[in-house]
Amino acid sequence: MALRTRLTEAFGLRHPVVLAPMDPASGGALAAAVSAAGGLGLIGGGYGDHDRLQREFAAAGNQRVGCGFITWSMARDPSLLDAVLARAPAALMLSFADPAPFAARIRAAGVPLICQVHTLAHARRALEVGAAVVVAQGTEAGGHGLAARGTMAFVPVVADLIAREHPETLLLAAGGIADGRGLAAALALGADGVLVGTRFWATREALIHPAAKQRVLAATGDDTVRTRVYDIARQRPWPASYTGRLLRNAFIDTWHGREDALHAAAAERRRDVEEADAAGDYDVANVTVGEAVGLIEDLPGAGDVVRRIADEAEAAIRRSAGHMAAP
Amino acid sequence: MALRTRLTEAFGLRHPVVLAPMDPASGGALAAAVSAAGGLGLIGGGYGDHDRLQREFAAAGNQRVGCGFITWSMARDPSLLDAVLARAPAALMLSFADPAPFAARIRAAGVPLICQVHTLAHARRALEVGAAVVVAQGTEAGGHGLAARGTMAFVPVVADLIAREHPETLLLAAGGIADGRGLAAALALGADGVLVGTRFWATREALIHPAAKQRVLAATGDDTVRTRVYDIARQRPWPASYTGRLLRNAFIDTWHGREDALHAAAAERRRDVEEADAAGDYDVANVTVGEAVGLIEDLPGAGDVVRRIADEAEAAIRRSAGHMAAP
Repeated sequence: MALRTRLTEAFGLRHPVVLAPMDPASGGALAAAVSAAGGLGLIGGGYGDHDRLQREFAAAGNQRVGCGFITWSMARDPSLLDAVLARAPAALMLSFADPAPFAARIRAAGVPLICQVHTLAHARRALEVGAAVVVAQGTEAGGHGLAARGTMAFVPVVADLIAREHPETLLLAAGGIADGRGLAAALALGADGVLVGTRFWATREALIHPAAKQRVLAATGDDTVRTRVYDIARQRPWPASYTGRLLRNAFIDTWHGREDALHAAAAERRRDVEEADAAGDYDVANVTVGEAVGLIEDLPGAGDVVRRIADEAEAAIRRSAGHMAAP
Repeated sequence: MALRTRLTEAFGLRHPVVLAPMDPASGGALAAAVSAAGGLGLIGGGYGDHDRLQREFAAAGNQRVGCGFITWSMARDPSLLDAVLARAPAALMLSFADPAPFAARIRAAGVPLICQVHTLAHARRALEVGAAVVVAQGTEAGGHGLAARGTMAFVPVVADLIAREHPETLLLAAGGIADGRGLAAALALGADGVLVGTRFWATREALIHPAAKQRVLAATGDDTVRTRVYDIARQRPWPASYTGRLLRNAFIDTWHGREDALHAAAAERRRDVEEADAAGDYDVANVTVGEAVGLIEDLPGAGDVVRRIADEAEAAIRRSAGHMAAP
C-alpha cells in the first residue's frame, strides 16, 4: 500500500514527500536519496554558486532530482537559469521574490515550476505566472520566510484559492512537518503532499556539520526563533521583512534585538561566524531548523525518513478513519 | 455517523468540538448553542467580572457548559473560583499563567481542568498540576497568546509528551482551525478534538457588534497581526511577552511599532477605544480574530458551525482514506 495523490501521479513518485531545497543541507546525495526512496529530491541552489550547482547535480548521479533557488539570487545572475535548465531538472522551485521574470522560460523548457508562497497574495501571483505546484509554507518552517502565516490555517485557504481559480495546480504544505502525522494532516487540509526541510536536515546525507546535527537532537521546538542576525552578520542582502527561523544559541542571544549594533560591527562578526562555520562552533554559527526540530530524535538515512513518513501517515489516516467507526 | 474520540467519550459529546472561552464573544447563548449541537461550550470569563459571569451562566439556561478564565485575573480575585464552581461547570479552563494555585480545588470539586498551553514547558506544567485536558494553541489563534509555536508542529510534540508522561490526559488542538479540514488535521496530529475560537466569533450568537462581524467577512488571514497596542491603550496588565492576534485596522497601523508613544498617551487613547467600542467603529476598536478568518465567509448559527465542522471532517477523513486505495 502507498499513498497516491495528484502529486505522486504527476511526478511518478511512490510517496507524496518532497525534499526542501535547503542550502547547504540539500546537496546531490540527499536529493538523490529522497528520490531513490520514492519521494522527490530538490537540490538547494541557494544563493546561486555555479560550481556548487554542477558539483551537487553530479553528486545526484542518475537519480531524477530537481533544484530550488532564492529568486532574487537568480535575478542577480540570470545565467543560473541556463545552467540549471541544462541539467533537465525534475522540477525548479523559486522562493522569496516575484517568480514572473523566470516563469515563462521554465515552463517553455517543460520543467514544472514550483513556487513557494508565504501569503495569499503570493499564492495568487504563483497561479498567475503558471506554477505547476504551489508550496504553502507556514512560519513554523526553518530558514528564511515571512513571519506571516501558520501552516494550519494557510494550507486550506490556498487549497480553496487553487480549487476556485486554477484547479490543475498542485499544492504542497510546508512548515512544521517532520513525520507522518504531519503528512496526514496536510492531506486533510487539502494538500497533495508535503515539502519537508528540518527532518531531512537531520539525516546522514545532509551537508551539515556533525556538531550541528547533534544540537538538533537535544533541542525542542521551543528553542527556535525567527531572526535577522545572521543575515546582517553575513552581509546577505535579504529584504528586511524576511527573517530566518534558527535554533537559539549564544550568538542569537547576544545580538537578537540589538540589530543596529550588529550592523555597525558586521565586518568583525562576519569573520567570527565564518570562523565558527569552519570550526563547527554552533554557539556562534547558525543551526537552521524549524519548530519541527522537537519531533526529531535520531539521524537516520534520508530514504528511511521518506519511508517512515509514508508509513506513519498511513497509520494516522487509519486511526482517523477509526474515529468514524459505528458505536 | 459521528466522530468518536476520547474527548467525546469523556464529556459525552456528539462532536469533538469545543468553543474557545472568548471574552466577550463567548457568552451564555453562544456556549449553550455549541453544547446543544453536541459540542462543548465554554463561557468566556475573561478578566473576571462577577456580574457578567452570573448573567452569562443564566443565559446558558439548562445547557451544560463550562467556563474559561485568564489565570492571572483569577489570581487577582480568587473569589471568582468560588463563583464559578458554584455553577458546577462542565469544565474550567485556565490560560496565560501558572494554573497551580487553583488546580487542586478545581480537581477536588470534580470539575475537569482544561489548561491552555503555548510552549512545551507550559504543557509539562499542565500535566504536573493534573489537567484533564491540555489545549495546545498555536500562534495562528486570535486573541492573546505567546508568539511561540505554530499549531502544526506543536500538537504532535504535546501528544508525544502526554503519551509518555500522562496518557490519560486529553489533547485539544487550537489555532487556525475553522472548518472540518482543520478538525481532521488535528486528529491526524494526535489530538482528541479541537478548540475553536474565530469560527464561533463569526456566528449569530457571538456577543460581538454586527459591524465587527462584517469586517471579518471581508478579511483574509493575511490581514491579522500580533500586537500589544490594545493592551497598552486599554491599560490591561498583560505580561509583555503576551501579544494578541487581531485584524489590522487604522488604529493598529498607527500605533503598532510605536508602543512607547502609545504608552505616553494611553489615557487619551483608552478613551478613543472605549468610545469606538460603543459606536461600533472598528477602524479604532479591536476585531479579535485569528488567521482562520480567511476561511470564514458567512455568519451562521453556532449549532450549524458545529455540525458543519463535523461533517466536513468526516469528508476529509474519507478523502484521506481514499489516498490509500490500491492502485
